[in-house]
Amino acid sequence: MIHNITKMCTKDALFSMISEPAAETGNKVTVVGVGAVGMACAFSILSQGISNDVCLVDVVTDKVMGEMMDLQHGSLFMNNPKITASSDYSITAGSKLCIITAGVRQKEGESRLNLVQRNTDVLKFIIPNLIKYSPDTMLLVVSNPCDILTYVAWKLSGLPKHRVFGSGTNLDTSRFRFLISQRLGISPTSVHGWIIGEHGDSSVPVWSGVNVAGVRLKEVNPAIGTENDPEKWKQIHQDVIAAAYEVIKLKGYTSWAIGLSVASITQTILKNGNNVHALSTYVKGEHGLEHEVFLSLPVVLGEIGISHIVTQKLNSSEHEAILKSATVMAEVQKDISL
Amino acid sequence: MIHNITKMCTKDALFSMISEPAAETGNKVTVVGVGAVGMACAFSILSQGISNDVCLVDVVTDKVMGEMMDLQHGSLFMNNPKITASSDYSITAGSKLCIITAGVRQKEGESRLNLVQRNTDVLKFIIPNLIKYSPDTMLLVVSNPCDILTYVAWKLSGLPKHRVFGSGTNLDTSRFRFLISQRLGISPTSVHGWIIGEHGDSSVPVWSGVNVAGVRLKEVNPAIGTENDPEKWKQIHQDVIAAAYEVIKLKGYTSWAIGLSVASITQTILKNGNNVHALSTYVKGEHGLEHEVFLSLPVVLGEIGISHIVTQKLNSSEHEAILKSATVMAEVQKDISL
Amino acid sequence: MIHNITKMCTKDALFSMISEPAAETGNKVTVVGVGAVGMACAFSILSQGISNDVCLVDVVTDKVMGEMMDLQHGSLFMNNPKITASSDYSITAGSKLCIITAGVRQKEGESRLNLVQRNTDVLKFIIPNLIKYSPDTMLLVVSNPCDILTYVAWKLSGLPKHRVFGSGTNLDTSRFRFLISQRLGISPTSVHGWIIGEHGDSSVPVWSGVNVAGVRLKEVNPAIGTENDPEKWKQIHQDVIAAAYEVIKLKGYTSWAIGLSVASITQTILKNGNNVHALSTYVKGEHGLEHEVFLSLPVVLGEIGISHIVTQKLNSSEHEAILKSATVMAEVQKDISL
Amino acid sequence: MIHNITKMCTKDALFSMISEPAAETGNKVTVVGVGAVGMACAFSILSQGISNDVCLVDVVTDKVMGEMMDLQHGSLFMNNPKITASSDYSITAGSKLCIITAGVRQKEGESRLNLVQRNTDVLKFIIPNLIKYSPDTMLLVVSNPCDILTYVAWKLSGLPKHRVFGSGTNLDTSRFRFLISQRLGISPTSVHGWIIGEHGDSSVPVWSGVNVAGVRLKEVNPAIGTENDPEKWKQIHQDVIAAAYEVIKLKGYTSWAIGLSVASITQTILKNGNNVHALSTYVKGEHGLEHEVFLSLPVVLGEIGISHIVTQKLNSSEHEAILKSATVMAEVQKDISL
Repeated sequence: MIHNITKMCTKDALFSMISEPAAETGNKVTVVGVGAVGMACAFSILSQGISNDVCLVDVVTDKVMGEMMDLQHGSLFMNNPKITASSDYSITAGSKLCIITAGVRQKEGESRLNLVQRNTDVLKFIIPNLIKYSPDTMLLVVSNPCDILTYVAWKLSGLPKHRVFGSGTNLDTSRFRFLISQRLGISPTSVHGWIIGEHGDSSVPVWSGVNVAGVRLKEVNPAIGTENDPEKWKQIHQDVIAAAYEVIKLKGYTSWAIGLSVASITQTILKNGNNVHALSTYVKGEHGLEHEVFLSLPVVLGEIGISHIVTQKLNSSEHEAILKSATVMAEVQKDISL
Repeated sequence: MIHNITKMCTKDALFSMISEPAAETGNKVTVVGVGAVGMACAFSILSQGISNDVCLVDVVTDKVMGEMMDLQHGSLFMNNPKITASSDYSITAGSKLCIITAGVRQKEGESRLNLVQRNTDVLKFIIPNLIKYSPDTMLLVVSNPCDILTYVAWKLSGLPKHRVFGSGTNLDTSRFRFLISQRLGISPTSVHGWIIGEHGDSSVPVWSGVNVAGVRLKEVNPAIGTENDPEKWKQIHQDVIAAAYEVIKLKGYTSWAIGLSVASITQTILKNGNNVHALSTYVKGEHGLEHEVFLSLPVVLGEIGISHIVTQKLNSSEHEAILKSATVMAEVQKDISL
Repeated sequence: MIHNITKMCTKDALFSMISEPAAETGNKVTVVGVGAVGMACAFSILSQGISNDVCLVDVVTDKVMGEMMDLQHGSLFMNNPKITASSDYSITAGSKLCIITAGVRQKEGESRLNLVQRNTDVLKFIIPNLIKYSPDTMLLVVSNPCDILTYVAWKLSGLPKHRVFGSGTNLDTSRFRFLISQRLGISPTSVHGWIIGEHGDSSVPVWSGVNVAGVRLKEVNPAIGTENDPEKWKQIHQDVIAAAYEVIKLKGYTSWAIGLSVASITQTILKNGNNVHALSTYVKGEHGLEHEVFLSLPVVLGEIGISHIVTQKLNSSEHEAILKSATVMAEVQKDISL
Repeated sequence: MIHNITKMCTKDALFSMISEPAAETGNKVTVVGVGAVGMACAFSILSQGISNDVCLVDVVTDKVMGEMMDLQHGSLFMNNPKITASSDYSITAGSKLCIITAGVRQKEGESRLNLVQRNTDVLKFIIPNLIKYSPDTMLLVVSNPCDILTYVAWKLSGLPKHRVFGSGTNLDTSRFRFLISQRLGISPTSVHGWIIGEHGDSSVPVWSGVNVAGVRLKEVNPAIGTENDPEKWKQIHQDVIAAAYEVIKLKGYTSWAIGLSVASITQTILKNGNNVHALSTYVKGEHGLEHEVFLSLPVVLGEIGISHIVTQKLNSSEHEAILKSATVMAEVQKDISL
């Protein structure tokens, strides 16, 4: 007791206490996994002031504590956010949103299914722990393969389907709009277009809807996006697909763009923005899809999660591509041991 | 019913509904009174993205609805906030913070006590209505005379004292730091100094603590703030006191600075910032004050309201000035009919 | 001189001077006219941190100095912007952008041409003064009737046409997108649509391009925007036209939405954003227009002003409406005494 | 040529060109070195909207191009900044500020002087190249040992001393304020205190100036910062010194806090903020220092660089520590081969 008085006296002399300060905010965001992707997400959310309460969790204690300290040392420049971290999931209690970036990488010669199973096993540990401490949370899956792991997270969590989604083609769409914008010499925010379907090689660019100020590029160039286009705009979709590979080849991993993409999704949720994002969502019943799979479609996102899916008009090749992706996913999913 | 089906078909065709969107955010801020001050508060909060859920309430229905529409028409530029308004207080339900800017003006020849009583009568209508619909809200009183009306709001609300406070000398302090900064040629954020006590003519500048990078101006100029100072820095406090009068004389009212000041207080609360602001707070027991009055002191502010008061070292003249203000307030308060 | 030494000693003792501080920034924005519109523009630009150097100019000295002081008193909360004001145009020297909100109001029974002439006479004083002190500035005309006064400002300034533009239908477009978004239950930033042509009663909504995630509402509801639409979406354009009248009826004037609209235009310029905005621009040669008039079209805006006009696909009624507006403008313009 | 016409037709059909878009902004910031520190600087500057024109330069072409692409892919979320990169310094032309984060790491058993010489050799390549393409730039040195390398950069550049500075103890000060704030339970922005001198182990905490709301902690606890303090606040300075080592031990390097610190310095420059930062600056003549060395002191920073140094009142032990650091630096510097 004497020890306590001594220890506290500067603080006690400085302040007169009126009430206990708040322990909880309503905007807690947990990032699971503090690799390059997880940290780009956490840093984007903090440095842009999107949440003032960010929690990091990772099995590697040293790394997660080091990242926490490094962020905290910059908190003077970030309006005093609360930054916590641990390898113990009790630290995540009360999260409004959990962003899952953890996962293992493909080994040489490993089959895709084998990778999926190994990452499923990782989620079998993560998801129940998150739900235990935040039963009403939302889950945003960033780990790859994103669509299948979002399905796995949904199954493991027992959460309603509008509260589990993957970052999906939000990033592919950002790359698509950037590359078109560069070719046109205008801002990516003034170029509108969507990539839907599977996040990755079989993603589907909806060329028919690409527009600037409501002018569809297809009206100006009817062959756009096809093999017959003399201007070869289709190459832009190839470049989008190649983008992650190219960045990984050059710098070893991707981080900044996925971090910003996830931060924009997080902002829409915390601000109840009702903005439309391309996210990996439960698609059975949309576009005639019959499998219980997750694929990216434009969704209306808000504080409760996904409220609506936008029903785009797909042409036959776009529709076919989506159906095919769904079949492939369902194939993989049926062999996963949950 | 047929009409309804027809009416909704574009929306229905466009969207597939997954879940009801969120009705409530946790960041609702109500502004009572949509005069120049109330609107500068509301606009500062919205345009700076401090809250995404702002409610306006005022007895003058036309004015309050016109202000709401005008703000809504700009929502494209403000990340889609929810903006509501009414003359009916049910619209305020679920507010985390209520900012009270309503009040009548001093009539020619009217005594100060008479003005206080008339504004007390206004609060007798407002406060119970706010508490009825948001029993757990905080109250931030901006109307003048700020300190006495904060006391009145506290009495009428039945809220704990850490949840009722006035904007007080947060603005006087801002003016003080700006005027010093201009004289020194540096940023006001790099000049530290505080004005405490009564918001208005008898406010107290704590010259002893004024510093730049920890260097007290008093160490450099021991006479600072006194009559004996050849550099006449005391004039800056005179200019702070004169500021509101001068602005009112020139443009008819004050608005922008008080709006920004209130927005900064609101941000600290919604972000659980635990920043120190000079706010009008219940001061009985601080600095030997024995009256149940509200005066501005530096307080630590967060999501629960005021958690601590900072105990500044006041010299005898500063202390005396505070005691005197408290006595004057208590005198006025005892004659108010609550 | 001795007086000066005495006066400066605190500052001298506090600082060791290394170099003269900067006098000029490259981001100076002048707002001409400090009525409700001008001040909403200035405050939006400052409070959102779009420019750190804002200058106010108005013939009414008291008002303009009062507004300057009120803004300055809040500069602690705005990252220390430079805020200057005068009724003397020398204060505007070195402006990158001048925003013109000054003008007289329509008198009862006054003809439109008479109003145009009176406001032209106002511009005859303002424009040469602005050009005198900032020969390389851009002009953004907000005063009404916006399109004709932008033409007048262009003529009087002698500036190239890409450096003179009016706020035009940037605001009408914002209202249009907000009203559609409310009906659809999503964010206005996720609703894309444009209003072009004359700012005001004869503005043209380009219904054909209105879309959400690339899905044209016209594909979902082919009658949209026409008299035959059972859902009566056309009413939204009526509401856009009525918006200013309604707000003026309710609160006496419009301010916040136009302020935010102008601030967004200013941000695009100062950040060299190359975003597309609907601005009043010189349209001879666009859409077969043959008159030297200014009307709103989507333009690509950047640091040099307008670099491109987006060539929208107009249907015959949209095209006709634009032609008609152009003819009316040309009629009015030919009788103006410049 | 025919190919070119074909290639451009979508763009040509979409736009009508009015004027060439802007090639140059006035806010170009170059980051030299794209390791963890350089990228945290670049990303903090971009994601917080501090500059809209960031250039990366590094000898490792793959890495620098990969980082550029990764940032560009997120530009949709960052208001369309211009992001360029190369290993060729011509890309840096026209930079307002160059941030130098490049450098080699200490080898096992390597003497400090040897490290300094190796990093000097790196700067011998970098600095003349930067000056060649941006003769009027400012240099902000982040590489370690920061103070000596800032001296080296100044010597090599030929720039006036107010335009060459090091990030110095801006970060140590941020850590200091954070750690004190945690102990007091308030925001770091409400805790004022400074660490000056050498960036690193011999840095000097100015305990005498540490204050909250103008209340010096020394008034409350006279022994603060000394060995005799029963509350052991001195430990906080030990923790600041240990912070970088601890973070490096845990995560391998430091990045986020230094990135945010550098971004805050950059913002002050680009906004002409005249804020006070603790930066490594030329100190001969300050505090009786006689050597031409660079050490951190609080400086007023603006668009022209450093305009003033704040003359803090140092007690004898603080003063002695600074003198000692200066002597050590001068010793090292005299053996550097420039």
